[in-house]
Amino acid sequence: MLFCFGENRLGTEDPFKGTTVRVEFGDATSTADHTISRSFPHTYGQPLVHFLRATAQIPDAQIINEHPAIRVGAVFCGRQSPGGHNVVWGIHNALKLHNPKSVLLGFLGGSEGLFAQKTLEITDDVLATYKNQGGYDMLGRTKDQIKTTEQVNAALATCKALKLDGLVIIGGVTSNTDAAQLAETFAEAKCPTKVVGVPVTLNGDFRNQFVETNVGFDTICKVNSQLISNVCTDALSAEKYYYFIRLMGRTASHVALECTLQSHPNMVVLGEEVASSKLTLFDLTKQICDAVQARAEQDKNHGVILLPEGLVESIPEVYALLQEIHELHRQGVSVDNISSQLSPWASALFEFLPPFIKKQLLLHPESDDSAQLSQIETEKLLADLVETEMTKRVKEGTYKGKKFNAICHFFGYQARGSLPSKFDCDYAYVLGHICYHILAAGLNGYLATVTNLKNPVNKWRCGAAPITAMMTVKRYSRGPGASSIGKPAVHPAPVDLKGKAYELLRQNATKFLMDDVYRNPGPLQFDGPGADTKTMSLCVEDQDYMGRIKKLQEYLDKVRSIVKPGCSQDVLKAALSAMASVTDILSIVSASPSTGSTPV
Amino acid sequence: MLFCFGENRLGTEDPFKGTTVRVEFGDATSTADHTISRSFPHTYGQPLVHFLRATAQIPDAQIINEHPAIRVGAVFCGRQSPGGHNVVWGIHNALKLHNPKSVLLGFLGGSEGLFAQKTLEITDDVLATYKNQGGYDMLGRTKDQIKTTEQVNAALATCKALKLDGLVIIGGVTSNTDAAQLAETFAEAKCPTKVVGVPVTLNGDFRNQFVETNVGFDTICKVNSQLISNVCTDALSAEKYYYFIRLMGRTASHVALECTLQSHPNMVVLGEEVASSKLTLFDLTKQICDAVQARAEQDKNHGVILLPEGLVESIPEVYALLQEIHELHRQGVSVDNISSQLSPWASALFEFLPPFIKKQLLLHPESDDSAQLSQIETEKLLADLVETEMTKRVKEGTYKGKKFNAICHFFGYQARGSLPSKFDCDYAYVLGHICYHILAAGLNGYLATVTNLKNPVNKWRCGAAPITAMMTVKRYSRGPGASSIGKPAVHPAPVDLKGKAYELLRQNATKFLMDDVYRNPGPLQFDGPGADTKTMSLCVEDQDYMGRIKKLQEYLDKVRSIVKPGCSQDVLKAALSAMASVTDILSIVSASPSTGSTPV
Repeated sequence: MLFCFGENRLGTEDPFKGTTVRVEFGDATSTADHTISRSFPHTYGQPLVHFLRATAQIPDAQIINEHPAIRVGAVFCGRQSPGGHNVVWGIHNALKLHNPKSVLLGFLGGSEGLFAQKTLEITDDVLATYKNQGGYDMLGRTKDQIKTTEQVNAALATCKALKLDGLVIIGGVTSNTDAAQLAETFAEAKCPTKVVGVPVTLNGDFRNQFVETNVGFDTICKVNSQLISNVCTDALSAEKYYYFIRLMGRTASHVALECTLQSHPNMVVLGEEVASSKLTLFDLTKQICDAVQARAEQDKNHGVILLPEGLVESIPEVYALLQEIHELHRQGVSVDNISSQLSPWASALFEFLPPFIKKQLLLHPESDDSAQLSQIETEKLLADLVETEMTKRVKEGTYKGKKFNAICHFFGYQARGSLPSKFDCDYAYVLGHICYHILAAGLNGYLATVTNLKNPVNKWRCGAAPITAMMTVKRYSRGPGASSIGKPAVHPAPVDLKGKAYELLRQNATKFLMDDVYRNPGPLQFDGPGADTKTMSLCVEDQDYMGRIKKLQEYLDKVRSIVKPGCSQDVLKAALSAMASVTDILSIVSASPSTGSTPV
Repeated sequence: MLFCFGENRLGTEDPFKGTTVRVEFGDATSTADHTISRSFPHTYGQPLVHFLRATAQIPDAQIINEHPAIRVGAVFCGRQSPGGHNVVWGIHNALKLHNPKSVLLGFLGGSEGLFAQKTLEITDDVLATYKNQGGYDMLGRTKDQIKTTEQVNAALATCKALKLDGLVIIGGVTSNTDAAQLAETFAEAKCPTKVVGVPVTLNGDFRNQFVETNVGFDTICKVNSQLISNVCTDALSAEKYYYFIRLMGRTASHVALECTLQSHPNMVVLGEEVASSKLTLFDLTKQICDAVQARAEQDKNHGVILLPEGLVESIPEVYALLQEIHELHRQGVSVDNISSQLSPWASALFEFLPPFIKKQLLLHPESDDSAQLSQIETEKLLADLVETEMTKRVKEGTYKGKKFNAICHFFGYQARGSLPSKFDCDYAYVLGHICYHILAAGLNGYLATVTNLKNPVNKWRCGAAPITAMMTVKRYSRGPGASSIGKPAVHPAPVDLKGKAYELLRQNATKFLMDDVYRNPGPLQFDGPGADTKTMSLCVEDQDYMGRIKKLQEYLDKVRSIVKPGCSQDVLKAALSAMASVTDILSIVSASPSTGSTPV
């Protein structure tokens, strides 16, 4: 591939400023659910890890001095996300920096390449045209999963045959759940290959106390926001269209929320709101129609409405219908016969829907058992329903505005292949470096993490957390992936309706709806003003969970150093009293269901 | 509107470096067709005009020293195009620079505001948030035309009522044809308002010997190329989709050609090629299917295919069908009855087409009598036909590749509202300045022009040309706008199939098709590398017609100054012999039909 912005575009830097890195082990991680510890006997309960520069003044931190040559494999899993190539670049760079004899193999064609032992040795030449470039085309990708016994065994056979010391899995929640499972299986099978995960997904839904954001999310939101803003400007200039824009990003609405905060469209329908308020298709239609009507009364006959890709899965009755369809698929019922075998209730809804949506709902589910969300044109469905309702209101005389005209868009593919933003280039590259250090420390089943991301690169904190510590177990089904019920998994995090990003949206929703305060953040910049901006959802939240865990340890250490044998009775008394009260409070808070130790 | 990149983003500069400008009048313009001179008795045959800095050493150039306060109106006509706001900024700046008492009125809501005398006085405050911003939302726009007697009279009444010295019409070929007509009508009616046109259209189809490119074309091509490249990267990563992308830009394929040269997709179907080779829908389908098959044989099951917006109008049989439908519309036949009244031949084609296209073909034509091109999803039609044909080939055993999967896109609205590129910001701003100087020189029916655009801003040549000199008369119908037959008009220029840009495409077509040499120019940059790039179609063509006309005059002047009374017999003899030969050659060349004086 030719390219215009190459390696020199960014000052992507070695996060550790040299070859010597200190490794500090924190406390053992735990989760509230015992199913997880039982399912992962070899990899559960491992400690958090921090990687520090050699100059860091941490007494307990180890320095790993020996860096034997190692063999590492890397595989792209799932939807391509901008920045993926830089993870590979980072691993390669760190490997060669510590031992030029180390080897990095890329698996060709994603997990299929892993199963079939199809590899490409990553060299400077191979990397030359892929540094800071989008897509996954250096290696390609195919299937999303490494889940069946057959697949896991094939992966194991590959790692043994290629004598890999490490396997790096680059992907989202599903792929990292697979990574944890592989790590456990490999440990059980005494295979020496250590498995490391990297959080790369444009959905931005791989979030928890250890993971602040995902590689690709920043780029996707910026490119989409550019396009949404352009459409807003267009709406305001032509003053005759309502644009319904669906945004790729799966069921969780992180992309839609961030793009709303960036571009201030008139409306956004978050799947999490719909699910928590149990809004039906009819409620949603009415809500949009009422908005159109209110705007028409102010002589505004245009607007922009954002929808998350997986909205259909959040609408209760459509979700129930989808589940019935998927169940029939699983039973092997042919597409032509599905509609006749639906329950009367689901059938009534199905028959009500326009033909194009029926066809899309009947598509075979994706490899991970969820609906073919990218193919279901919710934006057209809603535009259709709104148009019908507006026509009805015109006839009834309740709507007196101009004719309602909708234009529909799905923004996904045109953002997904973008050149990565500076942030994603850096984040991915640093994660690649961390992968090496995880392997050099001999750790298995870990995810590479960087925290404190909202600050400049030199303040980022590099670490690693056991993937099992991010797992939860779903006891009831939510989303058509019903097969995962009862099994520990890293689940996509929904938008936190109590979080600051959502609060920001709520505060401005009425202004966005009525006042056309469209904002144009402009195209991705690599230089000059705007090049260093980060997503709002990253910047407004108090993240840095791992930083705060470290801070707490410092307090505990300080108490211990003050209250040593030999200290005065008063000091001891004060310490006991204060700590008793702290422990009481924490016991109470920990017991309450809303703030358990499960990842948010 | 909030904005992130404001006035300081660009060093948009006064093209004349001060208030004094020299005006140089060239030869009178002419066209080959006498219908034009008869239709425009007052405004035909006016000379070309060059505007020069005060320091320019041109003996005949006038300096206009008096700058009385004037009143100017400006109106946006037709589709919004990035950079339009900067034209208004340029006019305002030049007006105030020469006389702070001058007034600029913007018409609200496009030509409807012009007819209804709805104005907004343009001030620094009004401009503050629109400088270097996309869209037309500062003033808005509605209808595209100023054509009927009623409309022309309303415009005349407005100009008289508001005591306008000048009216600036910002738009494409149709709006500038209207501008020329208004200028003639105003002159006939002894209305003192002078009419000036500005070439602003994202289509890039307002080209001739005086106009190298249009405001907005650079931006549109850059934003589209960014998205197309992203899709190419995506195609190459996923390796399972064919993307059919239709690009806004009307019937002419300038946008599609430029985007192809920028991003190197696998295929582009230019309307001009289809029309000149008289390809049918079936030929086109076969061509694409053969390409898919050839790629599959090389194990490539993905690709990106570009289509111009108005492709349907270039396919002979679809064009004939559209004409019948439009004729029936004109006769007042209702949409439900149209299909039954088609000729047997058109009816057969119509019935063959998929339902969604039928519905779109039946839409009422746009205000300028052409089809609702943006609403006709040619990309889906072709994807549909190709899929059917590929399925057939699979059954016949002639195609053995993977299943053909298409994803369709229409890129238009998301590019049209973009922040303008640096080039468009500058070009528009300079054109705005020129508008003032055209009015200060008392000229009527002129278009503001800048030539030598492929060079840096300080080498641009500012001028003005009578719009009538760009007109031609169509004697036969091509395109559903049959009502313009026989009337002089500025017609959209098709892609020149003998031009250098097209040649560049032809040379690379096979490589693009088979080798996936995708190129990613990246997002629009305002700073750093890439910020100063220009469209390839601008850079490869030898344009600067006006510069070369000037160069010729310099030669003629030089001959005259050498061969003065008193020169030697030998010099005179040499001059006579040389000039006789030049005149002979030119007489022969001018007589040949392929190089007449009609605009290309």
